[in-house]
Amino acid sequence: MNWPSHGSNPRYLYEAMGHTLPKEYIDYSANINPLGPPSSLMEKWMDFYQEIHVYPDPFAKGLKERIAKKEQIPVDSILIGNGGAELIALTARMFSGKKVVIIEPTFSEYEKNCRVNQCDIVYHQLKGPSFELNPADIQDSLIEADALFICNPNNPTGIQYPVSTILSILEECEKHNCSVILDEAFYDFLVDYESYLSYINQYSNLIIIRSMTKMFSIPGIRLGYLVAEPFVIKQLSELQSHWSTNTIALVAGELCLQDGLFIKETQDYIFLERKRLFHFFQNQNFVVTPSEVNFYLMQDPYLQDQFELFEYLLHNGLIPRHTFNFPGLEGKWLRFAIKSREENDRLLEVLAKWRQLHPLSL
Amino acid sequence: MNWPSHGSNPRYLYEAMGHTLPKEYIDYSANINPLGPPSSLMEKWMDFYQEIHVYPDPFAKGLKERIAKKEQIPVDSILIGNGGAELIALTARMFSGKKVVIIEPTFSEYEKNCRVNQCDIVYHQLKGPSFELNPADIQDSLIEADALFICNPNNPTGIQYPVSTILSILEECEKHNCSVILDEAFYDFLVDYESYLSYINQYSNLIIIRSMTKMFSIPGIRLGYLVAEPFVIKQLSELQSHWSTNTIALVAGELCLQDGLFIKETQDYIFLERKRLFHFFQNQNFVVTPSEVNFYLMQDPYLQDQFELFEYLLHNGLIPRHTFNFPGLEGKWLRFAIKSREENDRLLEVLAKWRQLHPLSL
Repeated sequence: MNWPSHGSNPRYLYEAMGHTLPKEYIDYSANINPLGPPSSLMEKWMDFYQEIHVYPDPFAKGLKERIAKKEQIPVDSILIGNGGAELIALTARMFSGKKVVIIEPTFSEYEKNCRVNQCDIVYHQLKGPSFELNPADIQDSLIEADALFICNPNNPTGIQYPVSTILSILEECEKHNCSVILDEAFYDFLVDYESYLSYINQYSNLIIIRSMTKMFSIPGIRLGYLVAEPFVIKQLSELQSHWSTNTIALVAGELCLQDGLFIKETQDYIFLERKRLFHFFQNQNFVVTPSEVNFYLMQDPYLQDQFELFEYLLHNGLIPRHTFNFPGLEGKWLRFAIKSREENDRLLEVLAKWRQLHPLSL
Repeated sequence: MNWPSHGSNPRYLYEAMGHTLPKEYIDYSANINPLGPPSSLMEKWMDFYQEIHVYPDPFAKGLKERIAKKEQIPVDSILIGNGGAELIALTARMFSGKKVVIIEPTFSEYEKNCRVNQCDIVYHQLKGPSFELNPADIQDSLIEADALFICNPNNPTGIQYPVSTILSILEECEKHNCSVILDEAFYDFLVDYESYLSYINQYSNLIIIRSMTKMFSIPGIRLGYLVAEPFVIKQLSELQSHWSTNTIALVAGELCLQDGLFIKETQDYIFLERKRLFHFFQNQNFVVTPSEVNFYLMQDPYLQDQFELFEYLLHNGLIPRHTFNFPGLEGKWLRFAIKSREENDRLLEVLAKWRQLHPLSL
């Protein structure tokens, strides 16, 4: 089957499966904040209308200054982008034709963009259900490598790598003159995330990508930023197309960053709700990854791959993210976003019924 | 002086000039529809809020189908983009390292993106005030050329090339196996524009780029489309970063295309207002280009370059687009957008005063 490569497009998924999208469904495939967007966005939305006839500030001065202040970093080490996806594309392009290492399973955009740029890709495959990363294991891959893509906390597993692991990789990569592209798209869902932004000064090979669409639930308007040494920012901005980040994203981004309480509330909600969900999964003999964020991988260990469970959920109008096109997962897991309490309850209800029907399975 | 390379950023312009942006000013530098956006956008704006937490449809199915129907072209010959600027960037990238011809003076993004992609650029310079294009004159430049960029009607002159000229260039380029990138960003401001879309079937070397931000006055949300043979669309879409066109742009675009009356009203307004302005310029001994769209080049023929007039206008809070970084113009002209009647009146008033102060000038 030709699996749609991304989540959050239920229509294309049902089409590919040869089914009709039901009238009522719940989409667990998009990893965005179930509490969002922040209410301030709704309140200001009418004002934003005035911005549609204004060209975006190509230097995104206002937003950059706000990020610089919040994160205590220099303005010229920031690049604003049309979502994390654009920043990944630009970064991959910078390593066009070079040797890159990708820690798998992970977000498919790294591979896709490295392929488009004719990179020589080396995959370092982690194994479930712990998906542990041992820095010593990637040393061989780093020989003559120019860049390494790593997502932390990782998508699709939701697992955060230990600080010592990331630092050891940074150190090792520096020895090999290899850049580290650290995608922190979901860092702000963690209660106590130790940011690597402060290491930008220490490691000139470090490039950090952050999405603002996940926490603030604004994937429709596209917004992300990248932090690196100013000379890297300059190179990347030359590759970026003009006015690439729209005006609505720029003003919405500034507004969102003022709402510290919203992030705290989200972190607390996700923490408690994940605990509740994982308690159920343990009781009902489902296996989950040790996620610390707003999504997780889950499997019924009695199944070889999860196709039957996937079909069962779709039939009930519940849409997880399949993993058939994640290298090393190949359908053996399903990914779910943590959604509202009611939506999560519905998932538990349908899964409890599944377990009744498949008490020991095969 | 380090001139800001684009219009529509008054703050950066005044900064570069060492002046302070006045509290009240009129910006004539952005070529967008003075009647827009269409009122339907304002009416639907609150509904659009629901779209910000939805990932954009990466295939932009709804908008593509609407364009296909309106323009009578196949869906698979359309690529939706994050503004014309992204589509220009993608196209230039497709000709990376190749020989390209640019008809100057024109929109600076062609050159900028061709440089980023290490193209070997040949400039074909047209001369004012008629900026006439003789196809025979570019024949030599076309030898071994892979692509030619042409803007019709042209920015910054506002001049439409005759149909016979464009067709003759298409024909000649086909002989040389050279693609023609025809940027029609302002085509819909013309009362009777003969579209070249129907030539896509006949000339597989033809790539047409259209902006939707100018007519519908939505530069802040970024939207454009490109029409070409399906195999070109496929190549370009692989280079495009994922979710590059935001959801608001997609839904706004669908809405805008339903409003045929708005386009007609705009065309009529621009036609009459341009006539009124040009009448004044003739009477007051200013020279203008024979523009057929919503902007024009203007000069005081008594000045060597227009810096003094430019300073005078800025001092009065009127901001034209300088032409110091348009090859072949080098400050000898100023570009003005046609704005509301009141704003145009203000321009005429200030220029009449200038003429009183400089009756014969140097």
